[in-house]
This record gives sequence, structure tokens and C-alpha cells, in this order.
Amino acid sequence: MTGNYVLTGASLATMASSDTPYGLIGNGAVAVSEGRIVWAGRREKLSADNFPWKQVDLGGRLVTPGLIDCHTHIVFGGNRAMEFEMRLNGASYEEVARAGGGIVSTVSATREASLEKLVRDALPRLDALIAEGATVVEVKSGYGLDLKTELNMLRAARRLGELRPVTIKTTFLGAHATPAEYKGRDDAYIDEVCIPALRAAHTEGLVDAVDGFCENIAFAPAQIERVFKVAQELGLPVKLHAEQLSHQGGTALAAQYGALSVDHVEYANEDDARAMAASGSVAVILPGAFYTIRETQMPPIEHFRKHGVPMALATDCNPGSSPLTSLLLTMNMGCTLFRMTPEEALAGITRNAARALGLTDRGQIAAGMRADLAVWDVETPGELAYRIGFNPLHSRIYEGEQ
Amino acid sequence: MTGNYVLTGASLATMASSDTPYGLIGNGAVAVSEGRIVWAGRREKLSADNFPWKQVDLGGRLVTPGLIDCHTHIVFGGNRAMEFEMRLNGASYEEVARAGGGIVSTVSATREASLEKLVRDALPRLDALIAEGATVVEVKSGYGLDLKTELNMLRAARRLGELRPVTIKTTFLGAHATPAEYKGRDDAYIDEVCIPALRAAHTEGLVDAVDGFCENIAFAPAQIERVFKVAQELGLPVKLHAEQLSHQGGTALAAQYGALSVDHVEYANEDDARAMAASGSVAVILPGAFYTIRETQMPPIEHFRKHGVPMALATDCNPGSSPLTSLLLTMNMGCTLFRMTPEEALAGITRNAARALGLTDRGQIAAGMRADLAVWDVETPGELAYRIGFNPLHSRIYEGEQ
Ligand SMILES: [Zn+2]
Ligand SMILES: [Zn+2]
Repeated sequence: MTGNYVLTGASLATMASSDTPYGLIGNGAVAVSEGRIVWAGRREKLSADNFPWKQVDLGGRLVTPGLIDCHTHIVFGGNRAMEFEMRLNGASYEEVARAGGGIVSTVSATREASLEKLVRDALPRLDALIAEGATVVEVKSGYGLDLKTELNMLRAARRLGELRPVTIKTTFLGAHATPAEYKGRDDAYIDEVCIPALRAAHTEGLVDAVDGFCENIAFAPAQIERVFKVAQELGLPVKLHAEQLSHQGGTALAAQYGALSVDHVEYANEDDARAMAASGSVAVILPGAFYTIRETQMPPIEHFRKHGVPMALATDCNPGSSPLTSLLLTMNMGCTLFRMTPEEALAGITRNAARALGLTDRGQIAAGMRADLAVWDVETPGELAYRIGFNPLHSRIYEGEQ
Repeated sequence: MTGNYVLTGASLATMASSDTPYGLIGNGAVAVSEGRIVWAGRREKLSADNFPWKQVDLGGRLVTPGLIDCHTHIVFGGNRAMEFEMRLNGASYEEVARAGGGIVSTVSATREASLEKLVRDALPRLDALIAEGATVVEVKSGYGLDLKTELNMLRAARRLGELRPVTIKTTFLGAHATPAEYKGRDDAYIDEVCIPALRAAHTEGLVDAVDGFCENIAFAPAQIERVFKVAQELGLPVKLHAEQLSHQGGTALAAQYGALSVDHVEYANEDDARAMAASGSVAVILPGAFYTIRETQMPPIEHFRKHGVPMALATDCNPGSSPLTSLLLTMNMGCTLFRMTPEEALAGITRNAARALGLTDRGQIAAGMRADLAVWDVETPGELAYRIGFNPLHSRIYEGEQ
């Protein structure tokens, strides 16, 4: 499909605000023009006078907004299967480190990789997301930890968006870890590498948002704040990996800077939820990492519900703590592990994921939104979260084109 | 590929007994004739005189035995997404039951479905398994719970094997649950329905093995034993769902009857492991159900290792406790949740899965075995268990044909 047309014979999980769960419209129609949704509603209210276009019958299938993965690290060199295997064979963290494992190995492999190789290696991961209906994927830097490689990662991310019909949103994550050459000199790394790399990447138009990792094994709030101040100066929105393994106060800092999202948040408390509600920050829940590292502290879903903090779900696809490339499985994990409802899970990879990326014209089926849609061989939206390791995607429409 | 040929340029995870993990052969070759492997080994030992056939270069890819899912319930009517959703929205088990949920709903939908509908609904699930390289899939009855529907389920399973290039092994599971019409009369159900249905199904050639569900919410060992005695009389091997939710003694019973496998076994103890080792029964580990019902009791992997009980892994694909259709994800879950090694996980869906089904010519790459193979876009076998929700299958060879 392309040009002007009307989709009919579809159930629409519009995810727009509505009294109905999922904003569901049973016998729905969607009019698409020039890559935009110009009308969506109940079929019988569709006037053929207004939209005298070809009609495409979807045979009763379910249509959702195109899926959005709002937190990934899909650009990286190498993989960490060896480390995964060593650990399961009983190796200690020390032994793994001596064998070159851990984030250090990803940083080395990423620094060694050419731009072309970074793109080639990331494509199968991106394609796996697209095969499940993803139309927007966020991609972070953070495995270069030097100016040249941080920029290379972001260039690779931009290239991915040219090679596939998908929107790539880039996030600068220089404050991900301190590289070996700055060991014990975190502040110097922030000043001498991270901030200059951010400025250079911004100058090259490579940065849509700025992120950091605030954790006892990474950076303290005061260090993150120095990066956020530069982001603010450059007019870039911020987000933060916070309260994943312990409570460090990153959420409060991020909220203070009006963060688009605060991500992981297993150890966030009710005050953090209040702060996020006040700042309008999205809580990005990452069950793949929780599952992989066998975390037991659940994110405070009840506090987020109570205070009206929008919740997104994302794969956190990365070679270490979440080698996950399925948003459908992420939904299932959100429901099974965290007792999110299937409706919250679907909002988490559509409407709220869009918000976590600052996108105002995605994640809902409504007039004015981009015509990014996923068509599913299911009867009810709950089925998308219910199955495990099954892809019922029938077709995918990106900016109006199939 | 078809006829006689030699695969070259491949790493072979033969899974045959060897000093090398995975029975790995780095620069390997496999000679295939008439759907059988006639030679497998190091490329330089391959004599062109013996196998003067066309050579197919696999470009350094990894070859494993075709995958085997040795425990599924993929034939059923309806789905249980509504129930999944109700529970997550806070409904009690009673409310779900009142709304027609639970196994009762699957039994009703299965009884109502025609043979054609059962086949049509199961095909996407089977296709999902095949898409990841499965070449053998076991399918159980057990949602009919009346003679007509139990046979219909098994006929549907056989039909699946005619429609797709895959081996279907059927298992009669009449002793899965007591249907509503026999409520409180478990013994009468066993005598009046289960055993007559088993005999009828056997007469029609529909039964490769006999299974039961030994649990406080299902059948007691003495009831299961009555079914096993008939299986024995008919010359059919047995297996058992045992010690999933509590310790009922099903494992000891199954071992006594020389069971091919005992499945679930979270609550099995060291004596059970000893009994299984003595009877040569495979422990079939089902992490999808463990994950879905949020079980916390881990299967006694250490006891199985210590006593040399072979371990298989399977999806347990079913509409209630494990709507899982990915053997790769099952491997990852076996490693992540139960700390199995990637090598154990791969043996669990190849060599040991074959054994759990009584198949002696599958699950290994070795002369004399069927040429059921999976070719993967990975460098090491550990990668198959490491990734989550990603399918690196390059191609699949079934009985020598691609
Ligand atoms: Zn992350
Ligand atoms: Zn089962």
C-alpha cells in the first residue's frame, strides 16, 4: 500500500485516550494520506465522500501502532556468548575478567570495528525488531568511550535508519562506563572525553538525546549532572539509567532536569515516582536485564500507577545484560515478571515509548499521527503479550507504506 | 540439497560422545546419502574417493543436529489470552473459573473443534518450531478427555507430520485431567474413558508413547499405574508429568515402568534422581512453565548431574502454563533460570530429547544417523543459548533435504 487509502475490516488498538481498554475500536477504519493518518474510527462513521480512496480489507485482523523500542544498545562490536558460557560453567567474575570478558571486551571490539562492520553486525538485530513490527528504534552510544568511537557508533545508528524503513533515534551515552585508560579518574573521563565527545557528536547532528549510567559501578549523580548541564546548554533532552542495582539518587536528578525518561528503576522509591510524575518523565522498564542478571528487586510498578507515571517497556538490547531482540517477549516479561497488564505492556511499546523519545506523532492510531502501523494475526490485543517466542505479525506499515 | 552430497566448510556441534565440548569438530564435513549421514568428521580426513559427490560449502557456519522438542501440547482449541489478561487485571482464580477459564475452557474448545480446525490452529505453532530448526516434535493428547476428542487430537498430530517436513511423535495423555462430567470420580474416568481411549487410539496406530499427569491436582500414582499397565500390555513406552507442583512419587513409579522420561520434576529429590539413573529415564526440564507460573522451586539439576541422569529441555507448549514456541528461548531459560550450561542446553534439545522419545537415530551428527540438521549463522554453539528472542537459523535439512 502506498499513497492514499483506507484500511477497513480491522480491530484497532488505537492506544489513544479512551474509555475503552487499548482505545479499542471493534469494526474500525483508518484513512491514510501521504504517510499520515488522516482519520481513524468506527467503520460506519467513515464517509466515502471524504475519503474516496481505494479500500484495503484487513480481514478482521488487529491493528496497533507500529512498535517502538525506546531503549537499545544494538550497535556494538563482538558478542559476549563466551562470557555467558564461562559463567554457567562456573567461572568467577575474576576469571571472566582475566579472559577479557565484561564490558571491556565490548569496548575493545567496538573500538576495533569499522563503521561498516558496526552497521553490518547491528542489522540482524534491527531486522529482528522490525520483523515484529517495530517502526522506531532508539540506539545508544556508550561502548566507544573515546571521541572517535562514540561518534562512530552514532554514525552507525544513523546509517541503520537509511538502510531500513525505520526511524532511528540516537542517544549519546558517553557516561556509560569509565574506560580502562581512565581507571580511577572518572571525573577526568567526564571532562576530557565524555563532554567533548558530546559536543562533537552534537555538532555533527548525531545526537537526539543524552543519557548516562548513574550507579555505584558507574557514575555518581554529580558526575552525571555535569553531562546534563552540557546537554541543557545544547538544547538536548536527557534520560538516565538509574536505580538499577541500588538507590543512588539518579532519578531525582533526572527529574530535576526534566528527563524524557528514567530507565531500569528497580530500586526507585515512592518519592522518585512522585518526582517523575511531576517532571513528566517516563519510567522505562527493562525486564530483559532483570531476567538475565536474575535480579529480584521488582520496579515499583504500584508507585508508578498510583502517581500516574507513564510506563514504557524496552528490550535494552545489549551484549551483556540483555541480549534480547524481541519486543513481544519484552511485553510477556513485563506481564509475567512484573505483573503489568497486557494493556500497560502494549502502551509501553507504543504510546509511552514514543513519549520516552519525545515523539509526539507516534505510538497512537489517531488523526495527525504518522501512519506507522502493525497488523497482527490475532483476535485480541492481549494475545500479543500472552504468547512466548511467537510472532503473529501479518504486515507492517511504515510512513504509510507496506 | 537432495540425493548424495557432502557438506563442507562447517563447524559441527555433533553432540556425539567425545572429549570435546559439544562433540565439536572445527573444520568439519558431513557426507549425506539417501537421507542418512554416512560420514561425519574432520574435513581433511574426508576421502573424495569414498564420497565423490557434489560438495556444498557452508561458509564456516555452525551445524547442529536438527532440534527436537520432546514435550509439547501444540494441538488444542482456542487460546487462554483472556485468562492471562484477567489474572493480570487482578481477577481471582474463582473469577477466572466463573468466566470459563482454566483447562476447562481448552477442553471445551478442543472438543468443539473439527479435526481440520485443530490442524489449522496448530500449524502456526509447529511452523514457529520448524523456523528455528526443529525436525522432530512430540505432540500430546489430553485436552479431549473423551474418546472421540482424544483420538481426534492424535489424528491432528499425525496430520501435522504429513503437512510439514517434520517427524511428529504422538503421546497419549488421557490421564491429563478429569473432565467436568467425571468430577470427583477420577477412578471411573480412568476406567471408563482413559483406558478405552488408549486402546482405541493404539488400535488406530495413533500412539507412540503413553503419558500422565501425576499431581495433587491431577492423578495419584496408583491411578497412573493402571494406565501404565495397559501401556505395558500394548507394548507402548511410558513417560510422566511428575513432581511439578509437589512431591507425589510419580517419578519412582515412572522409573519402575522404565519410563522414557519424567517431565517437569521441580520437586524431585535425590532418590528420584537415583531411580531415574537406574531406569535410564531422561529428566525433561520445562522452564517455560516454571517461568509462566512463577515457580520458585528449581529442578534438582545437581542431583541429575551427580547421578548421570540425561537432561532434556522442551517448550511444554500449551495454552495455559507455557504458551511457548521457541526452543532457542527454552535453551536460554534453561541456562538463565536453572544454570544449565549451554552445552547441556543444546544436548537437551538434541541428543537427550531424542532419547526422551526413544529415537535412536536422531539428535547427533554421526554416521548412521538421519540427516536432520540445522545450519546456523553463529560462530560458536554457545551463542544459540545466549541470545534471547533471536533466530540465527540459516537453513534446515530434513532427511537429507533442504
Ligand atoms: Zn541500557
Ligand atoms: Zn506438559
